[in-house]
Amino acid sequence: MNDLYKTKQSREIYRGPFFSLREYLVEYPDGGEKKRIILEHPGAVAAVPLLPDGKIVMVRQFRKAAGRVTLEIPAGKIDSGESPEDCIRRELIEETGYRPGRLRHLRSYYPSFGISTEIIHVFLAENLQPTRRTPADESYLEPVILPLEEVKRLITAGKIMDSKTIIGIQELERM
Amino acid sequence: MNDLYKTKQSREIYRGPFFSLREYLVEYPDGGEKKRIILEHPGAVAAVPLLPDGKIVMVRQFRKAAGRVTLEIPAGKIDSGESPEDCIRRELIEETGYRPGRLRHLRSYYPSFGISTEIIHVFLAENLQPTRRTPADESYLEPVILPLEEVKRLITAGKIMDSKTIIGIQELERM
Repeated sequence: MNDLYKTKQSREIYRGPFFSLREYLVEYPDGGEKKRIILEHPGAVAAVPLLPDGKIVMVRQFRKAAGRVTLEIPAGKIDSGESPEDCIRRELIEETGYRPGRLRHLRSYYPSFGISTEIIHVFLAENLQPTRRTPADESYLEPVILPLEEVKRLITAGKIMDSKTIIGIQELERM
Repeated sequence: MNDLYKTKQSREIYRGPFFSLREYLVEYPDGGEKKRIILEHPGAVAAVPLLPDGKIVMVRQFRKAAGRVTLEIPAGKIDSGESPEDCIRRELIEETGYRPGRLRHLRSYYPSFGISTEIIHVFLAENLQPTRRTPADESYLEPVILPLEEVKRLITAGKIMDSKTIIGIQELERM
């Protein structure tokens, strides 16, 4: 069982700064046709920034799509031509003011592959060196340093509902 | 720190059968304006269907957005007016041919709240009663029963990269 759809046509129906939408006309083996709308995304990278005292550098920001202020691990969209490692080094400096000395890949996952090509690569960031924060689009985001136990408690209590934070902390625990 | 954006305008730029896109013009406290594009989604429900022998009922299907055949826990989009519990009961019968006797909420999370309002509710489904599968749009999906240890191995090996399956199995492990 492999690609059971035969793609007959596709057309871009939206292009924006963060993602685009493409409509596919696909044909099933029985001859039936169906439209599929796929959000095309360049991918994202996140990191669990672990300080020597076991605390985690989180970021607090307002998320329009969730309708709330969130606490989450730092992350960002991959720029064109950027490797996941380069992306998260840049994002950590922009969002937290720490430069990671060591990055270890924890897990890559699809948040919602029913509709979106987005893949999120999650790293552990260690040997963090304080540097100057260089906010890009992150003026309204603030770093918050929390004990790992507090982050776990917020996840268990359903206060942190963010896939990359839940998965990143889970993977850190497994190590 | 609460909703730091002031939404000045919004307009729908795409409406499809699974989600819509809305463009917001938002104003920051410093007066700067920015466009935000949000995917508006009705939400989804997933379940870890646990058989009395400790095996898990997974589903195998081709996912266009991931470009691959996937193994994942059963799930589906919430229909208008449907509760998460009703949704997952319906989806379990459609996708696996099992009717759950007991549903326990494990976790709700946002897969990608940087761009999407989608929330996924994950349940544990127990006391599964075999019934007649009633595939809706699921003709090209097949149920696959796997030992829990095998599912965990596939996640650890990076073969299962699906957020709801990773989070659902993690929560089952914590119980």
